[in-house]
Amino acid sequence: MQTLTVALGNRSYPIYVGPGLLKQPELIVERLSQKKVAIITNSTVGPLYLEGVRRALVERGVAVVSITLPDGEIHKDWETLNSIFDALLEHRCERGTTLIALGGGVIGDLAGFAAAVYQRGVPFIQVPTTLLAQVDSSVGGKTAVNHPQGKNMIGAFYQPLAVVSDTDTLATLPPRELSAGIAEVVKYGLIRDRVFFEWLEANMQRLMKRDAQALTYAIERSCSIKAEIVARDERETGDRMLLNYGHTFGHAIETALGFGQWLHGEAVAAGMVLAARLSHRLGLIGAADVKRTAEILARADLPVAAPELGVERYLELMGHDKKVQGGRIRFILLKRLGEAFISDEIPPAALADVLGQPTHA
Amino acid sequence: MQTLTVALGNRSYPIYVGPGLLKQPELIVERLSQKKVAIITNSTVGPLYLEGVRRALVERGVAVVSITLPDGEIHKDWETLNSIFDALLEHRCERGTTLIALGGGVIGDLAGFAAAVYQRGVPFIQVPTTLLAQVDSSVGGKTAVNHPQGKNMIGAFYQPLAVVSDTDTLATLPPRELSAGIAEVVKYGLIRDRVFFEWLEANMQRLMKRDAQALTYAIERSCSIKAEIVARDERETGDRMLLNYGHTFGHAIETALGFGQWLHGEAVAAGMVLAARLSHRLGLIGAADVKRTAEILARADLPVAAPELGVERYLELMGHDKKVQGGRIRFILLKRLGEAFISDEIPPAALADVLGQPTHA
Repeated sequence: MQTLTVALGNRSYPIYVGPGLLKQPELIVERLSQKKVAIITNSTVGPLYLEGVRRALVERGVAVVSITLPDGEIHKDWETLNSIFDALLEHRCERGTTLIALGGGVIGDLAGFAAAVYQRGVPFIQVPTTLLAQVDSSVGGKTAVNHPQGKNMIGAFYQPLAVVSDTDTLATLPPRELSAGIAEVVKYGLIRDRVFFEWLEANMQRLMKRDAQALTYAIERSCSIKAEIVARDERETGDRMLLNYGHTFGHAIETALGFGQWLHGEAVAAGMVLAARLSHRLGLIGAADVKRTAEILARADLPVAAPELGVERYLELMGHDKKVQGGRIRFILLKRLGEAFISDEIPPAALADVLGQPTHA
Repeated sequence: MQTLTVALGNRSYPIYVGPGLLKQPELIVERLSQKKVAIITNSTVGPLYLEGVRRALVERGVAVVSITLPDGEIHKDWETLNSIFDALLEHRCERGTTLIALGGGVIGDLAGFAAAVYQRGVPFIQVPTTLLAQVDSSVGGKTAVNHPQGKNMIGAFYQPLAVVSDTDTLATLPPRELSAGIAEVVKYGLIRDRVFFEWLEANMQRLMKRDAQALTYAIERSCSIKAEIVARDERETGDRMLLNYGHTFGHAIETALGFGQWLHGEAVAAGMVLAARLSHRLGLIGAADVKRTAEILARADLPVAAPELGVERYLELMGHDKKVQGGRIRFILLKRLGEAFISDEIPPAALADVLGQPTHA
């Protein structure tokens, strides 16, 4: 087991990564202020892991409430959030009850937001079971639900007490979701760590074959980069925005197609190719770098061609993005492979060129 | 104008109290990070003050979005909260847009919670226009909406950038709402400041006649006590619970009768009499103290007899209270007039006695 720390003063917390962690309930129990938890999971993950986790906790004297939600990004909404509150109230969960998110990013975002606002805040532990959640959404305290007019529009920054990432859970992950997680892994290399990007180029096949050692290294390296950025800028007023590389385009794609049609990581993959092309159009990176970006993503079976929505529709969709400031859309661009920066001075013509061109990389 | 400070480190903020403050837009403008605000008000307060505030801000170059909600505690729910998000998105409000709550406690709680979670948090200014909001709900950062199973069940601790309390707005307050505000003013005397309690006994008639000087003193003293308690215990893990004197019973009354039948302050008044009687039953205060509590509230035209719901129904309703810990209901009791403390060791018989007796004080 590897242990990393997200350093946020008195709200610092550990990330545990490794095999067999679901069978180590002490990682959870040692953090409980009251021996009562509510496990929030979904109809896909629940049948696989809920009973094991529940029994391990009950054996340690913990009272366990189980809440199983329907699966899918389409359910990351008010209605599902409310069903969590209903269940928590029905089972008389109090301010000392710890919520446990057992599932992927949607479960983590929903359970985390529920924890942030139920009785004005209760303790919360992330137990991510998808690669995407293990390398991205479970770390850093972003929680949210979607609004019909935009993704993650309503939410909170709310840090967990701990993140428990059992790599064994990746064995049951559908191939499309494995790929979606790899998209975010590639992102960390692109924005921050050229050596890691090159390691990914060399080891993509191992990751796609779910080589345990390669996955553990990729998760650890990804969490380490994210933890370092979050510790410096928890509330996304600066550097944390770098983590949104590819996401401004990606969110527009998700909104346009309706949440859940493309997986988040798929939309981000196509978005990262658009961002690379924009960086190239602005003379920042070479055509070869755009090609390397598209190629590594394609090797992870990810879409590299964004849907052709037309320039105007893209701009309209991106105008609702949370990164908009003073009416200007901010973009994360690449200075070179392994180094990203924030810009809100994109010539409209460059943007139109990139969005208007055929998107086959 | 009086200025108090809520001391919360880098989230400290001023409370301005005095006449004519709505005509001093600089109190708001100087705090804006972006010259755009959304004023959230209701159909009662809006017609009285919205246009004046809006014009004063526009004259200073601030873009103003106005959102008018239906009036009443019954609307402090998900649905109304969502209508705020819809309007904010429709008007392209961004992370730098400041929300301004112009109204009473319901508006403050709704707008504050909207600010806490819209795009994971935007700046927020309280402009309370009722006595209750000026002495209580606008100070301290508690925001929330109600759930069918309990009051304020979903919310956040989220501090404003400033509180601007214009005492002129109390001239238009309906008499019942003036009384409801006085209930919370009396609470501060009871829990913390015997001298202030005695000042209130001597000056209740002036308050009821809306004597400007007496009101200003009462608001300032109330905010000062609240600010001091909140600064020590922002997230209500200890002393802040003292502010809930009378509220455990009061919330049960509000829930039982349906939100909005009794005003919050009215339910708290009846709740404070129950809490005083419980304190007396436990040998803490004398019968004369219970009588003084009931008398001062009666002189403010407040109900001092709680509805007779039966012991079991009260216990059931109070079991949902946020102050419940480890299944035990915690009560705030009086050690003497001017000093409250927290107890979770109430003999059931004492509670049953107080709840079962005829409630005429």
